[in-house]
Amino acid sequence: MKDTISAVRVTPIAFRDPPLLNAAGIHEPYALRSIIELETASGLIGLGESYGDADTLADLERVAPALIGLDPFLLNELTRRVESLTVNRADTGLNLAPGTHGDKVTMRVVSAFEVACHDLMGQLTGRPVHELLGGKVRDSVPYSAYLFFKYAEHLNSPYQKDDWGEALTPAQVVAQAQRMIGEYGFHSIKLKGGALEPGIEADTVRALAAAFPGMPLRIDPNANWSVDLAVELGEELGSLLEYYEDPTPTLEGMAELHRRTGLPLATNMVVTSAAEFKRNATLNGVQVVLSDHHYWGGLRATQQLAAMCGTFGLGLSMHSNSHLGISLMAMTHLAASVPNLTYACDTHYPWQDEEVVAGGRIKFENGGLKVPDAPGLGVTLDRDALERLHQQYLTCGIRRRDDAGQMRRYDPAFEGLTPRFTARAKV
Amino acid sequence: MKDTISAVRVTPIAFRDPPLLNAAGIHEPYALRSIIELETASGLIGLGESYGDADTLADLERVAPALIGLDPFLLNELTRRVESLTVNRADTGLNLAPGTHGDKVTMRVVSAFEVACHDLMGQLTGRPVHELLGGKVRDSVPYSAYLFFKYAEHLNSPYQKDDWGEALTPAQVVAQAQRMIGEYGFHSIKLKGGALEPGIEADTVRALAAAFPGMPLRIDPNANWSVDLAVELGEELGSLLEYYEDPTPTLEGMAELHRRTGLPLATNMVVTSAAEFKRNATLNGVQVVLSDHHYWGGLRATQQLAAMCGTFGLGLSMHSNSHLGISLMAMTHLAASVPNLTYACDTHYPWQDEEVVAGGRIKFENGGLKVPDAPGLGVTLDRDALERLHQQYLTCGIRRRDDAGQMRRYDPAFEGLTPRFTARAKV
Repeated sequence: MKDTISAVRVTPIAFRDPPLLNAAGIHEPYALRSIIELETASGLIGLGESYGDADTLADLERVAPALIGLDPFLLNELTRRVESLTVNRADTGLNLAPGTHGDKVTMRVVSAFEVACHDLMGQLTGRPVHELLGGKVRDSVPYSAYLFFKYAEHLNSPYQKDDWGEALTPAQVVAQAQRMIGEYGFHSIKLKGGALEPGIEADTVRALAAAFPGMPLRIDPNANWSVDLAVELGEELGSLLEYYEDPTPTLEGMAELHRRTGLPLATNMVVTSAAEFKRNATLNGVQVVLSDHHYWGGLRATQQLAAMCGTFGLGLSMHSNSHLGISLMAMTHLAASVPNLTYACDTHYPWQDEEVVAGGRIKFENGGLKVPDAPGLGVTLDRDALERLHQQYLTCGIRRRDDAGQMRRYDPAFEGLTPRFTARAKV
Repeated sequence: MKDTISAVRVTPIAFRDPPLLNAAGIHEPYALRSIIELETASGLIGLGESYGDADTLADLERVAPALIGLDPFLLNELTRRVESLTVNRADTGLNLAPGTHGDKVTMRVVSAFEVACHDLMGQLTGRPVHELLGGKVRDSVPYSAYLFFKYAEHLNSPYQKDDWGEALTPAQVVAQAQRMIGEYGFHSIKLKGGALEPGIEADTVRALAAAFPGMPLRIDPNANWSVDLAVELGEELGSLLEYYEDPTPTLEGMAELHRRTGLPLATNMVVTSAAEFKRNATLNGVQVVLSDHHYWGGLRATQQLAAMCGTFGLGLSMHSNSHLGISLMAMTHLAASVPNLTYACDTHYPWQDEEVVAGGRIKFENGGLKVPDAPGLGVTLDRDALERLHQQYLTCGIRRRDDAGQMRRYDPAFEGLTPRFTARAKV
């Protein structure tokens, strides 16, 4: 039962990512990710998956040697060592990829290794990770259909275009939803907004509501609408929405929006740290927090966030970035163990077609994932795939996600400043 | 590694307790406690210790059969079963034994069994409980010298009087502190107040500060002073106090006191549940929360409380009731694993002279307890002692703690209503 970490490997990978539109711009042809392996003296390997941008990789690599000799149960000691080797940079303000906030470096690095420690704890005790978190309260974790406006193919695409096609109109997005729900069985819908002219996005919400009557529906404009525009569209669309996610920037803006519309607001942008949680308790900017163990400090810290949401009467959902199967399994174990995580979780998973875990792409059933009962996270690495995705990282030329820069290849005038939209286009 | 609960035993015990004075009255000759044993199919025994009043015993007994077959790792399932079999009664308002609040029945019952489950998890994994909680951040947990005003002996004492003697004057309390600190090595002092005329208590604080210069000092009048009196005495004594614990009733009263004095206020009376924590975030009634795993939902829920305190910038300390070694060890494992538990913990332990754990009375070193590294809680039952203390329970005649009723034997006019003191006696 006693075992210690004898080797730490952090492998950057890149995987194909479709030309998905968002407030920041457009996804690049490859998404970056880091695969974390904690190997123990007895030969076990604990897995983690985190951001793959150059800053995160440098932080993970700097901490890695300090973990040699660590007992994977000693999470407080893990945190101490990470804290001693990471520096939280000044927050640069609004940032569309929450995990890259400069003020959360330590939490992000702890998170990456904490998940791998849980995988090891599970293997050492012969128990699935959810049992180390108090046990599953549901046998299957529901996910939502995460819809995007998108182009048909990347500019100068380095690979064959995806088979989802273009989605720039309400009808095209409805078709995307029909296919995704048909294949995965999802029972709720999230639409990434903030990308197109707001009137088109509003029409798309209405079209989805008409095509899927009664199905919970959300839109997430990633803070790309002014407060006034968010109020106007909220009043129009509110009755169709399960919650209204980050339509407008800043906690104060969200608070004003809530006061003016009464709509339940959700966020993964303005409540992403303890300090922001505390501010929200006073301002009542959001009523639903989208958790994310990748930047909230890991699985246990996210359980603590859940307890805080319960205490303050906030709803709890789960946020996603482009990710592969290790993250998906960590999200599933966590979600299974949190009683008050009552919304279907976000996941970008249907947009990826590569995998790094043995067995390849993970199968959804009826819109959810069966909670694994194998020891640890329940996934192992496909080492050939890892090497291939690592080679892809080495050759793809991307080192920091830059959705705005990518969009400037299409539109040199694109600025990516939010909120970009303050009114609907004149008809 | 897989094991399930095959038998649940709840044994009420009574142990000798000195005539300690408090706001509610005076301790009865015996304190009640329940000893919880969770036995597994493989013969392991997980231990817990909780309240021993008739209501708690009935709640524990009602839930006990439902735990047969439970895997001790499945804490969410434990909570679900307890919730299905317990009813939170309407809160009857101010209550000096926080664990007996009617609105926290479920949390109290979960707590009792959750600790025993942790003891089993530790034994099953060969790890001390603190490692299941993230690992110790300190090798020794500091406790404080918990001083009481007291009588020399119980009225009609059923046993030989204790050797601490009377403590009704500042000089007698200083002598009590000198002895207790001499024997235990404590580095901080807590004085239970709210019992005598406030001027005597204020003089006692001053005498302690003079006798132990620089030693952190607290007074806890258990809500027995009016706001005006608490302000007056706070202004006099504030500079001598590490924190000012529950001088006056209600969160609103504490908030007014804090506004008027600026002193750091602590509580185990007005922030004892999630709902009260939330109210305090708005009212700022207290700045330090005294945690207590016996009513906060167990060890993990108390870690979540700690995270909430960190988030909201509140200090964290630990509360105690009269207890024996199983509770003491659970408190020690918990305190060792909580980085922001920065105050010395309260414990009534020096006031007891009996024990239920093998090896007898647990030894303090330099005012603290070394954090055990044996599997589980690190204590086992002395079955002869358990039987003796159970027989004492059967014959002592006490079934519900009633400090006020006991005091009425001395003073038939005693009402026990708080706040009893609204001003100092005229000189």
